[in-house]
Amino acid sequence: MPINSNLIPIPMNDFQTWVHAKQQRTEHALESTLPTPEIAPHILHEAMRYAVMGGGKRIRALLAYASAEFCGVPAEQADNAASAVELIHAYSLVHDDLPCMDDDDLRRGKPSCHKRFDEATALLVGDALQSLAFQIISQPIEGIEPDIQLKMVHLLATASGSRGMAGGQAIDLASIGKNLNQTELEHMHIHKTGALIRASALLGVYCSNQTNSQKIHAVDQFAQSIGLAFQVVDDILDNEADTKTLGKTAGKDAESNKPTYVTILGIVRAKELASELFNHAIEPLVQYGSESDRLIHLAKFITQRNF
Amino acid sequence: MPINSNLIPIPMNDFQTWVHAKQQRTEHALESTLPTPEIAPHILHEAMRYAVMGGGKRIRALLAYASAEFCGVPAEQADNAASAVELIHAYSLVHDDLPCMDDDDLRRGKPSCHKRFDEATALLVGDALQSLAFQIISQPIEGIEPDIQLKMVHLLATASGSRGMAGGQAIDLASIGKNLNQTELEHMHIHKTGALIRASALLGVYCSNQTNSQKIHAVDQFAQSIGLAFQVVDDILDNEADTKTLGKTAGKDAESNKPTYVTILGIVRAKELASELFNHAIEPLVQYGSESDRLIHLAKFITQRNF
Repeated sequence: MPINSNLIPIPMNDFQTWVHAKQQRTEHALESTLPTPEIAPHILHEAMRYAVMGGGKRIRALLAYASAEFCGVPAEQADNAASAVELIHAYSLVHDDLPCMDDDDLRRGKPSCHKRFDEATALLVGDALQSLAFQIISQPIEGIEPDIQLKMVHLLATASGSRGMAGGQAIDLASIGKNLNQTELEHMHIHKTGALIRASALLGVYCSNQTNSQKIHAVDQFAQSIGLAFQVVDDILDNEADTKTLGKTAGKDAESNKPTYVTILGIVRAKELASELFNHAIEPLVQYGSESDRLIHLAKFITQRNF
Repeated sequence: MPINSNLIPIPMNDFQTWVHAKQQRTEHALESTLPTPEIAPHILHEAMRYAVMGGGKRIRALLAYASAEFCGVPAEQADNAASAVELIHAYSLVHDDLPCMDDDDLRRGKPSCHKRFDEATALLVGDALQSLAFQIISQPIEGIEPDIQLKMVHLLATASGSRGMAGGQAIDLASIGKNLNQTELEHMHIHKTGALIRASALLGVYCSNQTNSQKIHAVDQFAQSIGLAFQVVDDILDNEADTKTLGKTAGKDAESNKPTYVTILGIVRAKELASELFNHAIEPLVQYGSESDRLIHLAKFITQRNF
């Protein structure tokens, strides 16, 4: 199915204002959640801030806020979920950059955490950020029932663990130098990035005290497709962009002999796939009319960034 | 205050039977919680089992079970808490053994996780074990109210994070080669090992749906003192035992210029301190008569192991 996202009217100014506001909101929430470096252990707290603040598009937080909004949840009720998914994401980047993993010196245009500090500190930063994510998502949140919040903790833990994000990373490591086909590559990404992206969107719905409704199934299909689309776009950007634009070492995956959507499908087909995934993502949402605008715009934002 | 633990009658056979039964129970619970290696990603799941199973005295699980029993909670209601604290402990050992941290090749008499597998796998094992701990402690547990269970998640996350265990590890790293005094050493251990030991005991009480009672304050004093005693004893064992008895590299801390209770206080005073901490631990419990027997015996078990 060819992409036809031009048919969907997007009031970009309004959406861009929303994105900017929610990014600011996320920065503020993270800022107030992270212990200040004045609190001991000082270097660890400084390094945690370094790893989390001042960078990133906060896609996962935006997904949480947008799906919360889709279910009529006020932003303040989704703040903890949005921060928690960003903390999990930030921890995964710090650990992924370590020498024993991707060995990347650059992240978001700055030295990666273990280069700015040291490996031991970066290891503990990741560990402590994961704990912090569970700390804030288990704090009492006004408007959310405790049994639903427990389900939120469980969803986030499952998405982060060996059958989610950490498992995807293990599959990724095992795939270096191997000739994966598209199905195997998809399997890896469904875990590595897809699980947390899906959790981000679903957590937004859980904030409305719903864990089983038509809307959650719509958001689930949306999130799973957009999670894959996100990775396809990442591979396209990695292939096309230079290091300065990307803020991390460009072409790294191809160079280290990691399979990507571009190496497997070629650039043209990879772009088509991103469009198809976009269409599949928004398909269950269009029936909701303007209620689903944010999510649809966000899908476009994710699949069309920088190209 | 000199130790006087001989005055407390301990029916050791009964206690040893209890310890053995609860250790077996913990092994079984962990066994059924860990994904089998038949499930992908296979190597990660194999390595997670390797890191968790077949070793360790399960002190933290025993503390959870004993304090649950102290509050009249059946063991099955404390299983998830007991497993969760052991998973957090196991993850911390895997990460602590990594070359960028303590660089230890041996753990519980076997090659440490990164030696048996590789560094990247060990990193992911630790990450995924932490997630798994939060996964199982957020599963609905019959008999525990959801709002109490949320508090359990929060307690465990706080105890694991930058102001708990991970923070203690950071303080430990920063202290290498420094002349700490007893207060500074205590500060480090209150975080590094004390926080999780305290959480283990408190979680047992939380399983009774109490988070604020006379009993919880008693368990809190008990757990904080026994947490420190545990470390003092560890330092004594590290100083006295050989590698074979210890199951990990003996004398490693002193060798790597890390301050220990023995290097700061000397062996005689360190043993006295362990006794004083034992007495302080059991002080608030004795009023409960036979109800607190398990906890008191456990305190003795912890402070008198192997010397």
